[in-house]
Amino acid sequence: MTPVVLPIHSRSGGYRVAAGGSPVEALVRARGSGQVVVLVDAAVLRLHAEAFRQAFGPEVPILPVVASEQTKSYAAITPILESLLDAGVRRSTVLVAVGGGIIQDLAAFAATILLRGLTWRLVPTTLLAQCDSCIGAKSSINLGRHKNQLGTFHAPEEIHLSDGFLATLAEEDLRSGLGEVVKFHLLAGPDAFACIARRLREGIPADLSDLVVASLGIKRPYIEEDEFDRGIRNLLNYGHTFGHAFEVASDFSIPHGLAVALGMVAATRISAARGWCPEEHAREVEAVLAPLYRHHARTVAHASLEVMIAAMGRDKKNSADRQFVILTRGPGRMEKVQVDLMREIAPALGDFQAWLRRD
Amino acid sequence: MTPVVLPIHSRSGGYRVAAGGSPVEALVRARGSGQVVVLVDAAVLRLHAEAFRQAFGPEVPILPVVASEQTKSYAAITPILESLLDAGVRRSTVLVAVGGGIIQDLAAFAATILLRGLTWRLVPTTLLAQCDSCIGAKSSINLGRHKNQLGTFHAPEEIHLSDGFLATLAEEDLRSGLGEVVKFHLLAGPDAFACIARRLREGIPADLSDLVVASLGIKRPYIEEDEFDRGIRNLLNYGHTFGHAFEVASDFSIPHGLAVALGMVAATRISAARGWCPEEHAREVEAVLAPLYRHHARTVAHASLEVMIAAMGRDKKNSADRQFVILTRGPGRMEKVQVDLMREIAPALGDFQAWLRRD
Repeated sequence: MTPVVLPIHSRSGGYRVAAGGSPVEALVRARGSGQVVVLVDAAVLRLHAEAFRQAFGPEVPILPVVASEQTKSYAAITPILESLLDAGVRRSTVLVAVGGGIIQDLAAFAATILLRGLTWRLVPTTLLAQCDSCIGAKSSINLGRHKNQLGTFHAPEEIHLSDGFLATLAEEDLRSGLGEVVKFHLLAGPDAFACIARRLREGIPADLSDLVVASLGIKRPYIEEDEFDRGIRNLLNYGHTFGHAFEVASDFSIPHGLAVALGMVAATRISAARGWCPEEHAREVEAVLAPLYRHHARTVAHASLEVMIAAMGRDKKNSADRQFVILTRGPGRMEKVQVDLMREIAPALGDFQAWLRRD
Repeated sequence: MTPVVLPIHSRSGGYRVAAGGSPVEALVRARGSGQVVVLVDAAVLRLHAEAFRQAFGPEVPILPVVASEQTKSYAAITPILESLLDAGVRRSTVLVAVGGGIIQDLAAFAATILLRGLTWRLVPTTLLAQCDSCIGAKSSINLGRHKNQLGTFHAPEEIHLSDGFLATLAEEDLRSGLGEVVKFHLLAGPDAFACIARRLREGIPADLSDLVVASLGIKRPYIEEDEFDRGIRNLLNYGHTFGHAFEVASDFSIPHGLAVALGMVAATRISAARGWCPEEHAREVEAVLAPLYRHHARTVAHASLEVMIAAMGRDKKNSADRQFVILTRGPGRMEKVQVDLMREIAPALGDFQAWLRRD
């Protein structure tokens, strides 16, 4: 089948997303005709072993990697870099990465620093990676206790999507991805938000491919206008500063997209408390997101407020003495605003926790 | 004093070299007015402690680093990255690097991967770094036994030169830098070559600043036309493939610029043997370079031919089955050519060694 193609403009010359077809078809497109080396999430390789056999001949080196927060570190990448050099990568070799966000981080980082930059292609296999992180060129790598403080901007030249990969995901991972899907539709304005609210009323949709393409279409102008995340692209972090605090306070037991979903509810409630948007809007956002994050509300309700506030202060998007968050005046009307962590945010998060504990 | 300014065009927006003034003046220019952190060769800091005190107040963090082939490795950069994060670098912090090629490699690499890219400024203190490596944006980092296989293209935004730093260099380091100065003048054509031959006849010139600026001026169009080293920029590697073989076979006991000087003599002799240039030209090149590399000729004369040939095969500029070297048809007429390592280069290097042993 002919894939849907979404081109992304970029200072490095641009890249494109091709969506459609089976996992084998996506892998064959990513393989291309030159010399490639494949970096793949070991779990994805197990689930789709036959597709890999069909797409890559015996001559293509395939390196399975265990994807975890621990392997996403500067030190833990060493054996991956060594394996790639031992596999004989040259400047003309293309690195093909298959997996979720962690594999994407590892591959983007490796492709940046090997031989002064390799071309790479990405086959994202999680909903989160397909609908969001696969475009925008960011990578994040841990250095010891410094979480996500290393990273680069280095876009893949091609991104190949297949919803066949989504079929093998756990429901929790689908919910996590849907958190970001809702975020994009909230950013896009009242009609898009009404539309996603309607789609999610019946539970997780069986066919997610149109929501993936719609999400990428909403994200695209932000990353094209502000490739290096110094301005309008910040708005894509709606829900993320609070979400990050919830992730840290729960020791990363809450999936990213669901922490962001909880973060959006917190941000909307704080916005309503400031009189920026009607209480009604906060209730609508909560109604759409609560079925997704339901299993994690309790964790946030009982998390340490002190740890959350400390995490917000350390967020790399914030400068030393001023704290920025994204609040909202309604769908499509997000604004970056400077807040006082101790006077406004700490009490507001305390209220949010009490509200989560209400029933 | 007003520095000489050389702008460099680049896809990342361009950068510039400012040459002139004392070490303090160069450091003050590099400091600028925003938040900076300084990464400096510990030996340079010792030699110019007073200049650092004058240029940077007590509020600027200064991190001294021991510059060696061992510290230029992926693993050894870890404490530098940690120190920079502990020193509180943010995306708006500028990294100021002061030192030779190794400090430049470390700073460029760190600036690429910290917080998805920091702006950095460079104060090169060796002749080699001032006349050559400071422009072109390359960095090279070792990964275990894989020498120089990691690295990036990430140019400093400003490069500040002062010949006051050259005054504290050992004569061997000046000779090493002059090897590259001669290379640039050979690339520039017969007049430039005749000019540098004349300048070096009396030994090492007392004032090197005009040769530094002339060398950068010759290098500039190559790196502007071919920023990512896929075409004409390869010619800047004249003498380097052979030089690299001599470095490996001598266990890196020969300074880089002098290995390149010996490599240029080898390349010119091989070119003459092919009938590409007159024997006379090979003798002229040798006459200019021999006083520089004199102390190292014996090492190359007795080095293992097998190790040298193996090193040329592993050079990252060569693809798996074909070996490229730069040969010459005379000053300003270098050409990249494919050669047979075993049939042509091995016997020619054997002859070169016999010739070095001749007296």
